[in-house]
Amino acid sequence: MSDKTAFAVPGAAAELEEGSALTPKFDADGLVTCVATDATSGEVLMVAHMNNEALAKTIATGEAWYFSRSRGMLWRKGETSGHTQRVIEMRVDCDQDAVWIKVDQTIAACHTGRRSCFYRAVPLGRPGAVTLEFRDERAFDPKAVYRGKN
Amino acid sequence: MSDKTAFAVPGAAAELEEGSALTPKFDADGLVTCVATDATSGEVLMVAHMNNEALAKTIATGEAWYFSRSRGMLWRKGETSGHTQRVIEMRVDCDQDAVWIKVDQTIAACHTGRRSCFYRAVPLGRPGAVTLEFRDERAFDPKAVYRGKN
Repeated sequence: MSDKTAFAVPGAAAELEEGSALTPKFDADGLVTCVATDATSGEVLMVAHMNNEALAKTIATGEAWYFSRSRGMLWRKGETSGHTQRVIEMRVDCDQDAVWIKVDQTIAACHTGRRSCFYRAVPLGRPGAVTLEFRDERAFDPKAVYRGKN
Repeated sequence: MSDKTAFAVPGAAAELEEGSALTPKFDADGLVTCVATDATSGEVLMVAHMNNEALAKTIATGEAWYFSRSRGMLWRKGETSGHTQRVIEMRVDCDQDAVWIKVDQTIAACHTGRRSCFYRAVPLGRPGAVTLEFRDERAFDPKAVYRGKN
């Protein structure tokens, strides 16, 4: 597959849900949601977005590519930090607007230094303002890894 | 917490990422992304969205509530099918625009009848059009469960 190959246009619900063609339903910004989990532990590492090109590159190379909404650019996970994601398996959801990748994560996924971006728990069933509980230690020092880099 | 309680407005990146206040960063449509995983198997069951009220209700009740973009309404997971989600743990990500809930899922999460919405695999590294591979059998018959219901 060329990275430039456009996917076919999504059909009706029955085709999207029960068909065997990958026809991603990109949103108004041209993006699908991607959930990356640790292929070994099952932990959710991060939630990000892929445009047409990021999805095609991920499928073609088996390395995770995303589209950064804040920077407005295609982005190979780990290109600055070295913390790449090798994709072990990719799944697509019923209406083809989300993909799930199980990855072999180098060092850590989160730019804050934690293994997962989801390092804080939200207590349930307590009245009043919610106080988050930190659960994960840093796996690397972001100041050292991103020093002098964007 | 009242279901109507507004969360505090998100602060700067340092506060969002390292603070202990839950200040969700809702998007232009007033939504955050929610990933629901099976608390036992770790499987990703579904990706959906929560508005302010759905998030507050989920935190208050420990049952998953979502906001349906297609129907434009608040939605308690399982209110039609009976396939509810009891939330075992909730996490929030670094920039607080996504939450992860580990759930005890009754029967199945997907309206097509599968346990997970991610029942099709996307083969990697193959040139040409992508042919999806079905991985999961139906856990229920959607025609029977949703008969006469929207």
